[in-house]
Amino acid sequence: MSPPTAELAGLSISSKKTGPGGKPLVNAAVVGEWHDAKAAYTGPKLSRRTWENEHFAGSEGLDFVFRITYDDEANPSGMINLGMAENTMLTKDYLEYYAKVFSKALRPNDFTYGTQASASKRFHTAVADMWNENFTPLTPVQPDDIATAPGATGALDQLFSVLGDAGDAVLIAAPHYNGFDANMVVRSGARIVHVYGPEPDIAFTTPGAEIAAFEKAMEDCKAKGINVRAVLLCSPQNPWGRTYSKEVLLDYALFAEKHDIHLISDEIYALSVWDNPKIPNSPPFISMLSLDVEKETGKRFDKSRLHIVYSFSKDFGCNGFRLGVIISQHNPLVIRGLLHISFVAKLGSIGDALISHLINDKPTFKELVAKNVDALRDSSEKMAAFCEKQGWKPVPVNSGHFMMVDASNLGFKTMEEEKDFGRHCIEFGVGVGLGQSYHARTPGWLRLTHTYAPDRLDLALERLGKAVEAWRSRGLRE
Amino acid sequence: MSPPTAELAGLSISSKKTGPGGKPLVNAAVVGEWHDAKAAYTGPKLSRRTWENEHFAGSEGLDFVFRITYDDEANPSGMINLGMAENTMLTKDYLEYYAKVFSKALRPNDFTYGTQASASKRFHTAVADMWNENFTPLTPVQPDDIATAPGATGALDQLFSVLGDAGDAVLIAAPHYNGFDANMVVRSGARIVHVYGPEPDIAFTTPGAEIAAFEKAMEDCKAKGINVRAVLLCSPQNPWGRTYSKEVLLDYALFAEKHDIHLISDEIYALSVWDNPKIPNSPPFISMLSLDVEKETGKRFDKSRLHIVYSFSKDFGCNGFRLGVIISQHNPLVIRGLLHISFVAKLGSIGDALISHLINDKPTFKELVAKNVDALRDSSEKMAAFCEKQGWKPVPVNSGHFMMVDASNLGFKTMEEEKDFGRHCIEFGVGVGLGQSYHARTPGWLRLTHTYAPDRLDLALERLGKAVEAWRSRGLRE
Repeated sequence: MSPPTAELAGLSISSKKTGPGGKPLVNAAVVGEWHDAKAAYTGPKLSRRTWENEHFAGSEGLDFVFRITYDDEANPSGMINLGMAENTMLTKDYLEYYAKVFSKALRPNDFTYGTQASASKRFHTAVADMWNENFTPLTPVQPDDIATAPGATGALDQLFSVLGDAGDAVLIAAPHYNGFDANMVVRSGARIVHVYGPEPDIAFTTPGAEIAAFEKAMEDCKAKGINVRAVLLCSPQNPWGRTYSKEVLLDYALFAEKHDIHLISDEIYALSVWDNPKIPNSPPFISMLSLDVEKETGKRFDKSRLHIVYSFSKDFGCNGFRLGVIISQHNPLVIRGLLHISFVAKLGSIGDALISHLINDKPTFKELVAKNVDALRDSSEKMAAFCEKQGWKPVPVNSGHFMMVDASNLGFKTMEEEKDFGRHCIEFGVGVGLGQSYHARTPGWLRLTHTYAPDRLDLALERLGKAVEAWRSRGLRE
Repeated sequence: MSPPTAELAGLSISSKKTGPGGKPLVNAAVVGEWHDAKAAYTGPKLSRRTWENEHFAGSEGLDFVFRITYDDEANPSGMINLGMAENTMLTKDYLEYYAKVFSKALRPNDFTYGTQASASKRFHTAVADMWNENFTPLTPVQPDDIATAPGATGALDQLFSVLGDAGDAVLIAAPHYNGFDANMVVRSGARIVHVYGPEPDIAFTTPGAEIAAFEKAMEDCKAKGINVRAVLLCSPQNPWGRTYSKEVLLDYALFAEKHDIHLISDEIYALSVWDNPKIPNSPPFISMLSLDVEKETGKRFDKSRLHIVYSFSKDFGCNGFRLGVIISQHNPLVIRGLLHISFVAKLGSIGDALISHLINDKPTFKELVAKNVDALRDSSEKMAAFCEKQGWKPVPVNSGHFMMVDASNLGFKTMEEEKDFGRHCIEFGVGVGLGQSYHARTPGWLRLTHTYAPDRLDLALERLGKAVEAWRSRGLRE
């Protein structure tokens, strides 16, 4: 058997390789060569979906990345991962707040199955209120317009299982968040079609241009006999960290209507938006639910095709809590379809209780959202300054946890060289998001997360600086 | 459109019916006639798996039941559900304990994706320790032998998705927990085959007899061209509330080996076991992991076919926390297969943190387990006494949260009459588990949960007493 490897973001890392602390980077007992392991398997038959699954490498690689990640107590020599969208800037505030309200928030009913098959009635109500207060939906969101899932990851998995069949395609503008590749595919069997706008990739926000690319993709799919069932909008966009203009959002709606497909709007960064003077006319965040498509365009739009995905992970710095929601205001059949699935993947009631408490505590909610926005502005500026010092070109952002950076001055000519740089950084205790893992087409792009508290971000950038220095001094492909 | 109804445990309840507080029993916006709703649907196409799903009624009925359930604050006139396996006897102790340790248990890392793609390293380690300390596995459980899911519900869903394909059968001794009907089926497409032992049904624990029925079921499946992929053992058994003898457990292992199928052992009531003098020779709980099948029988047993399902819901009174595990000690490929799925249905980190803290706090762990066992003994005796006073025959139990009760003196002659009684009880603010929902074959069986704190149990029994009195006075099928 060849040495186990892990694949993520294009990384191929041997289990024999050691990390910053001199410890093996990979737990060989868990992360191994999937094909070798299958060849050696003698136990009773497994399902075809497992045996033939092509996403194994991704899951195992993700597991590997988590296992080597920095933890100030358990793994201080671990990797600080600038490739992962986690916002830990306000963790201390949240810890204090939840500790303070825990006994008030958690009720005896949270120990039982609770008040609905999905999350609690309290959570459904709180989420509806929050949406109505912050995102001006055209029609107020009702608690029963909502289905729940463990995170947006689970929401996408479950939603597509209801919307489409195995083999059906979902169109997504690329470069895009790499989780989409697995989240919607692993269980539902969807097929992701990456749709590229005109060069350069960042032109995606130009009205008309993005949709022209979608029209072309739709034609291609038809020619190949691929059934397109949905288009996914990621707004604010990941990895570009930018909000969409109303015009482009309307393009999406009309495109979905024209082809009679579902429109999934992933809005998990909705409250992580700020003004960046470098993007003077950047639009505010606009929820698809707030758009009166028919009035704006004079054209028909059947709102039963519109489904919003949201999670508290990003805007409230709690990826670990797994609190995802799907809002489908005009398609009760979809909400009902999700009910089956939500019960076999029900939300944990403690997170449900604490987040509901926070939403209902409006002064604290507002205070923390505002504090987060200020912190986002500061950390994004610090990251941009670091990148510029390296001679890289960070693409200005006004939302999200990260920025795309043109680091082509590192001299990558191939994607393999980009991967080498990713591996190299891990040895310096820092992870970077490689452009290729988001389906960027030219080597040299990095997606860098800036949402760490100042001291942690400083440490990460110090490590990244050293990694770059060593990379430059050894020359490319020595 | 005809009035919406909800189906669960054979209940068909109209949305126009009112509950104890005079409020509608059903939220018609959510629970409606699935077939009518489909007929009226004009939106974009949904998946075949949703459109053709036969389990809708069950999920919606479950949702309905949760929505009308008693809550001392929000719904004091709601139904106290003696048909649901929730153990709320120690809720106050848990609330106090978790509030006390919250700040210590929850770490900054719990706000991030954490230290593994599945649950935290801390949780995996704590569960392995707990298993090794309490259930004497033949080989010590390692943290990496464990996969996680939101509850045993999710564990069964995910596990079967890895083990078998749509249409593959799982054999289960009946009567059995009704959740199996949906949990393993909704997403994986498994087919459940209910296997009945010799009459009376409670003879299922006789060595040889249960397996003879399984052999017959296996033959039937073969004749029908149904591919059997697994046998499920529920130990301690639900709904019978009894532990299995070593001999029967060995029967299960050899049966799985003989037919080269997987053996899933659902052991979620492992620590909810006590001595009942009415069952003098009842065996203690024996985990399948602790059995040396080859040494005991002299026959080959490939342990890669053995998978344990466990959850903290039952033994630690926290159904809402959704903390399920799958232990597969000798089949790393299954654990790896589960990794994909576990990430799209990851556990909430707060429950993970609190339960890990409890497991590692060994004096408190032992104290609460012992207190729970004492409370189980008391509450089961109180329930048995109530039933005897009604002239019913409770089947003696030594485990679980409930007992099966022969209530045939209520005079049901048909399953429809049994359903009528279920509906009748809800009008008196109390729910009962109908034997038919657990696939009992003769009308008149009830599964009654006794694991409520004394005052709540008293209130439930008072309501049930009144319901029975009214039922008797009106006569059957008036």
